[in-house]
Amino acid sequence: MSKPRVVIALGGNALQKDGEVTAEAQKSVAEKIGQIIAKLSAKYEIIVAHGNGPQVGNILIHEETASTATAPAMPLETAVAMSQGQIGYWLSQAIGNAFAREHKRKQVASIVTQVVVDRNDPAFKHPSKPIGEFYTAKEAVKLAKTRGWEMREDSGRGYRRIVPSPKPIDIVERREIMSLMQSGAIVIAVGGGGIPVVRSRVLKTLRGVDAVIDKDLAAEKLAELIKADIFVSVTAVPNAYINYGQPDQIALGILTPTEAMSYIRDGHFGAGSMLPKIQAITQFASKKRLGIITSPENLELALKRRSGTIVQG
Amino acid sequence: MSKPRVVIALGGNALQKDGEVTAEAQKSVAEKIGQIIAKLSAKYEIIVAHGNGPQVGNILIHEETASTATAPAMPLETAVAMSQGQIGYWLSQAIGNAFAREHKRKQVASIVTQVVVDRNDPAFKHPSKPIGEFYTAKEAVKLAKTRGWEMREDSGRGYRRIVPSPKPIDIVERREIMSLMQSGAIVIAVGGGGIPVVRSRVLKTLRGVDAVIDKDLAAEKLAELIKADIFVSVTAVPNAYINYGQPDQIALGILTPTEAMSYIRDGHFGAGSMLPKIQAITQFASKKRLGIITSPENLELALKRRSGTIVQG
Repeated sequence: MSKPRVVIALGGNALQKDGEVTAEAQKSVAEKIGQIIAKLSAKYEIIVAHGNGPQVGNILIHEETASTATAPAMPLETAVAMSQGQIGYWLSQAIGNAFAREHKRKQVASIVTQVVVDRNDPAFKHPSKPIGEFYTAKEAVKLAKTRGWEMREDSGRGYRRIVPSPKPIDIVERREIMSLMQSGAIVIAVGGGGIPVVRSRVLKTLRGVDAVIDKDLAAEKLAELIKADIFVSVTAVPNAYINYGQPDQIALGILTPTEAMSYIRDGHFGAGSMLPKIQAITQFASKKRLGIITSPENLELALKRRSGTIVQG
Repeated sequence: MSKPRVVIALGGNALQKDGEVTAEAQKSVAEKIGQIIAKLSAKYEIIVAHGNGPQVGNILIHEETASTATAPAMPLETAVAMSQGQIGYWLSQAIGNAFAREHKRKQVASIVTQVVVDRNDPAFKHPSKPIGEFYTAKEAVKLAKTRGWEMREDSGRGYRRIVPSPKPIDIVERREIMSLMQSGAIVIAVGGGGIPVVRSRVLKTLRGVDAVIDKDLAAEKLAELIKADIFVSVTAVPNAYINYGQPDQIALGILTPTEAMSYIRDGHFGAGSMLPKIQAITQFASKKRLGIITSPENLELALKRRSGTIVQG
């Protein structure tokens, strides 16, 4: 019997515990995640997707702050590609090391992944996602003029660039990811929601666009395309909650897609945090397929349906 | 009959024509290279390796100049991984677009690649490769103290960090690269000579080290391991030369390994430029295998042994 195929989406914050953001600190968190994944791979065929929020934020801060004529800042879409190299390297080394410690060998590969979005996605008319550095009002006006950036005041800390967050509609490298999986590799892909690209109408050539794709929605799209059995969004909390932060807060367990959708409609989930995760797992859950929200520690139990928030079709 | 397997090593400078270093300019050069590679793939099975000198240099300048406590600079080995994401994205999109323009589809994948070096490589005792930003003498003294960097005066323009350039001894992701190739993909790998890692003695775990691996030597190592038929180092000039820049300069054509080695011994080739290329192609050339130095324009003819400098075993 073949192993169940699982796509695991890790939060970009998951690598930055206790505000530790050096490469060494993030690699040391990656080593722990690597051990969890190596252990699970005995029972499951695993594809790892990951976020990149804090990492690509820092790349953009460096690129923009220190931009010169001879070393110009890279655009957002290329910065996403850089973060895929960075985090993909840390994760693939960490997973490989976990096998090595058990005197085992396993193929592990991080693959640079482009994700197609629709040029006519309404998100392009309504940028919503703040990225990179905070600027003063004066700087913000200048950047809006010189760079064409949309700027918005963010949480009282200053002005930030806001970019569109369009929906993922296709994964360019899905066949390559399948080939690697079928050869027995643990594949790391769709980092940071993927490098956002649009497809030209006639020739179908690709072109990068400055946007960010939600990593849970992109990972869910990959899970659909590669016919995964289980899709897991791994985050800092062990469950999704209704009445979150209230005295009557309730951790959600096993739900039907209909139940999950009704909680979504009732507005129980935060737009930038739990909402895309519960949307993604609900979208994924259909006949016999499982969508799960859980924490790294509870991942093994959640895959056995003994923990976490589970939407089961 | 199966197609000859060719590893093509592109110079990192090859993407920066006429000093144009923006992402847009480099992508537009990549599109041209993509067309050459797409065309060649009808007759050859192709793996693309690439340099990253100017790109990782700019990443390091940004990371170091704009480093803060909350957005600390990434170390060199992680910066190499970032440049693999960056250039790997540009090249895989460009190659895919070249097929799309011909109304064709082809699997193309960029894979994050770690390259193993020997902890006892003498290069670690004799750092030789300047990287990143230029500093004043005073800054250089401070960086040597605070960061433990080895600093050296470079070409009258100031002080730079110098790092070891150890020899590649293994490619961590060689099996994954083979799997992708065997599924019919054009693979982009070993970017920037690979992320340099050392293997622990007992457990064989990997750890990144701050060093740079020569991209021609790393690409040659990959070519050996995946049993390529041809290894090509693509550079700005169409040939290797003896008496280079002298009135009696001669472009080298087809040579035996013995002839190539005797020119190497006679000191005809520049240490930072042509020497590693001619060493790499000579190392590769053995029974019926070809090592080639050529320019992008002459690549097709050189593969037919009608142009370029060729070492034939």
